Amino acid sequence: MEKEAAVARNRKVVLRGYIDRAPREDDMELVDGGAVALRVPGGAGGPAVLVKNLYLSCDPYMRGRMRDFQGSYIPPFKPGSPLEGFGVGKVIDSTHPGFSAGDFVSGMTGWEDYSLITKPEQLRKIQQSDIPLSYHLGLLGMPGFTAYVGFYEICSPKKGEFVFVSAASGAVGQIVGQLAKLHGCYVVGSAGTNQKVELLKEKLGFDAAFNYKEEPDLTAALKRYFPEGIDIYFENVGGPMLDAVLLNMRIHGRIAVCGMVSQHGVTAPSGIHNLFSLISKRIEMKGFIQSDYLHLFPRFVDDITKHYRDGKIVYVEDMSVGLESGPAAFVGLFSGKNVGKQVVRVSQD
Amino acid sequence: MEKEAAVARNRKVVLRGYIDRAPREDDMELVDGGAVALRVPGGAGGPAVLVKNLYLSCDPYMRGRMRDFQGSYIPPFKPGSPLEGFGVGKVIDSTHPGFSAGDFVSGMTGWEDYSLITKPEQLRKIQQSDIPLSYHLGLLGMPGFTAYVGFYEICSPKKGEFVFVSAASGAVGQIVGQLAKLHGCYVVGSAGTNQKVELLKEKLGFDAAFNYKEEPDLTAALKRYFPEGIDIYFENVGGPMLDAVLLNMRIHGRIAVCGMVSQHGVTAPSGIHNLFSLISKRIEMKGFIQSDYLHLFPRFVDDITKHYRDGKIVYVEDMSVGLESGPAAFVGLFSGKNVGKQVVRVSQD
Repeated sequence: MEKEAAVARNRKVVLRGYIDRAPREDDMELVDGGAVALRVPGGAGGPAVLVKNLYLSCDPYMRGRMRDFQGSYIPPFKPGSPLEGFGVGKVIDSTHPGFSAGDFVSGMTGWEDYSLITKPEQLRKIQQSDIPLSYHLGLLGMPGFTAYVGFYEICSPKKGEFVFVSAASGAVGQIVGQLAKLHGCYVVGSAGTNQKVELLKEKLGFDAAFNYKEEPDLTAALKRYFPEGIDIYFENVGGPMLDAVLLNMRIHGRIAVCGMVSQHGVTAPSGIHNLFSLISKRIEMKGFIQSDYLHLFPRFVDDITKHYRDGKIVYVEDMSVGLESGPAAFVGLFSGKNVGKQVVRVSQD
Repeated sequence: MEKEAAVARNRKVVLRGYIDRAPREDDMELVDGGAVALRVPGGAGGPAVLVKNLYLSCDPYMRGRMRDFQGSYIPPFKPGSPLEGFGVGKVIDSTHPGFSAGDFVSGMTGWEDYSLITKPEQLRKIQQSDIPLSYHLGLLGMPGFTAYVGFYEICSPKKGEFVFVSAASGAVGQIVGQLAKLHGCYVVGSAGTNQKVELLKEKLGFDAAFNYKEEPDLTAALKRYFPEGIDIYFENVGGPMLDAVLLNMRIHGRIAVCGMVSQHGVTAPSGIHNLFSLISKRIEMKGFIQSDYLHLFPRFVDDITKHYRDGKIVYVEDMSVGLESGPAAFVGLFSGKNVGKQVVRVSQD
């Protein structure tokens, strides 16, 4: 008779229902998912991997999955089911030849203690090293890759150019700024608190930084920081900041459109009024999604790992402890509560 | 003793003062500039050419030169002085070795009967041919070159792609549409009257066309004409049309931003709300100015001349007769009064 598998209690953070505004904590709910057998069940319909989730990533794009909108590049969450997102976990059991119990992996997982991954081919095995496991959700994960692709592939940077990054202390922005510095650019970042501004200047090596909430006139502020204009804008916020940037771009400037986090939760987002600058300044504005560039992922990991080990790049995380802290951590993204990349630690091992 | 030069009366259309709204006829004034000697005056400070203006071009960008704004790619007009714009003229006298009396030329000139061109190197000599002289302001001039550069260099078109052109019967749009058809694309145009819509379908060879003023929901209209979405949008108007297009673009679509004529005259232009589509659809949106691509001009002239002679391309002009008709013709651009490229005929020889 087969040995009985160990069981564990599985908690889940589920979406209560679709929303069409900024997310609130009570849009999500921590529920007891009952006991889960700690092995891949029979008849899983193909190889699968049971993962114990260690770290979950809070990313702004997830807000789009809380809407009942099928037309996006990624389908909406299912109400009553756990949220999904990038995570780092430990393999408990596997029927896929590429993974064994004890492996650490990163990839799409559920907001719960244990997840059965039925498409294990999307998981990446993590080679354990001196790099913290949670960094595979940030520096070496989707945000880091977004920064890498956006900066090198979309911005076409040249040494000496003037680079502006909004939401600069965030998961993506802090890497863009550091890559731009390593590339020989002059880099200014904006953020929403003085603490973040200090972080940008003191720890992340930005040439200058400012608190956009203390600037009554963003156009004038940018003029002050970029008297000769902006060559590259890494767009993370949208709204009035984008309008102010458009008026301060240099001829043949480039705008990489990565996120518009300030606009995610707004039903009637403020319109952009200064697109005529695209013509007079011959600006290229390009949206991108990192997953279109996965062929560059290995090079990205090599480059960034080397920079990290050489002490040329650092990463700031905001770690929230416990699955139950997930909803508040996620909601905090949209008011800029997080300082650095927001991660939820579900378990330490 | 030197022979006395013949003289002629020189009328001018001058700007009365700077404006910050849509132009009106009475912002300009026809004044009698007195008698002008029909030769290049001595002491002109270098070689110069005296030109009799035959045709003047009415172009939307000129509205930007009526504002007191120095930050553009071209300086404002001077109040009390004649407007400037592209024109076709006949050389009356020349002290520049490249031009002789009787030559036909195109280039920047004044809104007046006779202009002294002090930078004759910017003039292009026209080889007389079967092509109407006025076409050097449209099909073979700046609008045609704008269409050529915008379509081939900015839009990166592929055979079979879905192309949408706004202001499609205008100076630029009608050429974009015809080039796109020659390239094997499916082409739809929008215009503001049923007469123009007929023109697009019957004379200019668009696959379909619609009157945007009769569409209460532009997003739905575009969905009807492009059930599979738009690959290429040649942007001539801005405003609500751009917002509707953004929602109807296909993944990896391209938007060439050429003009935003509907926004030129508006003090508080309507904001653009749907730029988040740039990310989800990975859209490239690029502003351009034809003068950045002048190295392609000879190829453009060869290509378009061949298409014209082969009967593969036609051109629709709206000819207004007499310098005195210039202000009304120019103002008409902003309400879409012109059908085809708006030209003012100052003189026939």
